[in-house]
Amino acid sequence: MNKPNATAAFYRGDKQFKVEPTISRSPAPGEVAIRIAFCGICGTDMHVFHGNMDARVGHNRIVGHEMSGVIEAVGDGVTGFALGQKAVVRPLDHCGDCPACDAGHQHICHRLKFLGLDTDGAMQDVWCVPAHTVHLLPENMRLDHAALIEPVAVACHDVRMSGLKDGEDVVVIGGGPIGILVAMVARDAGGKVVLSEVNPNRLAIAQKLGFDTVDPSGSDLAAEINERTADKGADVVFEVSGTQPGVDAMTAVAATRARIVMVAIHAKKPTIDLFQFFWRELKLVGARVYEPEDYEKAIAIVASGGVDAETIITDVTDLHDIQKAFQALDSSPTALKSLIRIGGDL
Amino acid sequence: MNKPNATAAFYRGDKQFKVEPTISRSPAPGEVAIRIAFCGICGTDMHVFHGNMDARVGHNRIVGHEMSGVIEAVGDGVTGFALGQKAVVRPLDHCGDCPACDAGHQHICHRLKFLGLDTDGAMQDVWCVPAHTVHLLPENMRLDHAALIEPVAVACHDVRMSGLKDGEDVVVIGGGPIGILVAMVARDAGGKVVLSEVNPNRLAIAQKLGFDTVDPSGSDLAAEINERTADKGADVVFEVSGTQPGVDAMTAVAATRARIVMVAIHAKKPTIDLFQFFWRELKLVGARVYEPEDYEKAIAIVASGGVDAETIITDVTDLHDIQKAFQALDSSPTALKSLIRIGGDL
Repeated sequence: MNKPNATAAFYRGDKQFKVEPTISRSPAPGEVAIRIAFCGICGTDMHVFHGNMDARVGHNRIVGHEMSGVIEAVGDGVTGFALGQKAVVRPLDHCGDCPACDAGHQHICHRLKFLGLDTDGAMQDVWCVPAHTVHLLPENMRLDHAALIEPVAVACHDVRMSGLKDGEDVVVIGGGPIGILVAMVARDAGGKVVLSEVNPNRLAIAQKLGFDTVDPSGSDLAAEINERTADKGADVVFEVSGTQPGVDAMTAVAATRARIVMVAIHAKKPTIDLFQFFWRELKLVGARVYEPEDYEKAIAIVASGGVDAETIITDVTDLHDIQKAFQALDSSPTALKSLIRIGGDL
Repeated sequence: MNKPNATAAFYRGDKQFKVEPTISRSPAPGEVAIRIAFCGICGTDMHVFHGNMDARVGHNRIVGHEMSGVIEAVGDGVTGFALGQKAVVRPLDHCGDCPACDAGHQHICHRLKFLGLDTDGAMQDVWCVPAHTVHLLPENMRLDHAALIEPVAVACHDVRMSGLKDGEDVVVIGGGPIGILVAMVARDAGGKVVLSEVNPNRLAIAQKLGFDTVDPSGSDLAAEINERTADKGADVVFEVSGTQPGVDAMTAVAATRARIVMVAIHAKKPTIDLFQFFWRELKLVGARVYEPEDYEKAIAIVASGGVDAETIITDVTDLHDIQKAFQALDSSPTALKSLIRIGGDL
């Protein structure tokens, strides 16, 4: 019988993570084993913590997907990786046999498995994943910064789907972690970004990062945008708030033929000003997760300093204190991105 | 003092058109005078008839824009037209000095004038219009058929905005005059079209025109479309119903990365399943009126018989009976497109 040789954090239901000894298996054929350095806490992980995803994840799940690490071992048939190389995982496993896969849209596969939700994830010492999900990193990249690549890749996908061109006017509605990263990637692509947010702590972070901000609870966002754009409106709008006021604002600030990217998950069906879509020929573009090229772009942006990792990473907690980290993030007014340190050095 | 030399139908409010003698003026510099042959009754004209647009049109307005005719005279500075040539008018006059015009989207100009609503229209013997709005027709085109070019151009714009490719699965939600024309133009472009409609008379017309139809009041439209497409869904959806069930259906039938074109005018804000936009990366594309290339395409389609004009034109009434024609159309269960005959021969 194998003895435990590693540690993992298991979600046990009822807002509880338990850090327990576990057996780290060897990579199966086609897999790569990665020794985890850091893993960020995603909004989705917070949903798991709150018990909203128990039906999907159960009470014996290792979560975590915003990770960085180094190649520990490779399974049979895997080529192209050397032990010790720095790497991140694009945590999507597609079926290869549905209409979305047939059409080349594997990232929105009808039977997509999300690693770290539908299978065990990165909140453990060593994580075995399909080789096709692994992206290698530049040797000199800091592994705490690299833990931002997954959420930055979300932002890269959102910005790519918008078709943003240099010099265009951009409004980002919602200044949480993803909204801030979308704003950064849009600015990196040449967009003139205004960020709309009601939370004063998030507004302060956005301002610290150099963004023009508007608090729509205290001023007329559409009037502000019209004034800044000589009555044109925003060419590109990202709806990242997931709220009815956000959906109202997204059409109100949009220029004729603007592209509005739906980044947020709207669990409830909001009302929407469809007349404006007709009248001004607006486009609404849904954007979900990422494709391989978005990961490559995210790696390049993090490598170049295009996102301010030092400001975005607000705290780092060791794996054995993961319970405290989730509890703290749940009630923190100022946290932006919390990392769990697993094997990484700071 | 000039004597009346022509006849026109004036909208006088309170569901009343009055046919009265009028003075047909000469074309001003930059204008073309067109002797009107036929003019179709648009849904917008019915809104005028019902008094819903009194604030915009007043009670002294000649309506009508779905017209055909021949060049009667040209104003100073106008070149490129010969007297007697068959012509139609693209009834949009843009300001040339707003953000939409600056961006090359003159058809959705911020201060767009719609001829026949914001200015007098074609329900009269001779209509003077800006020369830039005139499109010439093939010599052998029937002028009653040519009165369909304006609504066919709407459909051509909708289909062009969808990016429809040969062989794609199409659902048209709503089988009124524009829905039927969208279905015809989509079929002409190679789309495999299913038309969804609840009105049995409209279903019968659609079937007569050779379309597969579904009555969503009696069957599960999304299940039908999934069955026909091996669980893929429709690549392109046109929402032409202007109803909440239509908005519900448009996301339910859509394939991953489908394009949904918003053709209908939704005066009320419906609820919308925005989660599906995120989850399946759907696109919503607003489409309003037309651009010059849509008119040229519409002329080519009508010339080639790509739309079945004989089935679409359900009745023709002389101008002096315009009141009866509007009243009949208001209560007809079977009328599709009603034409007013002004100077045209049948």
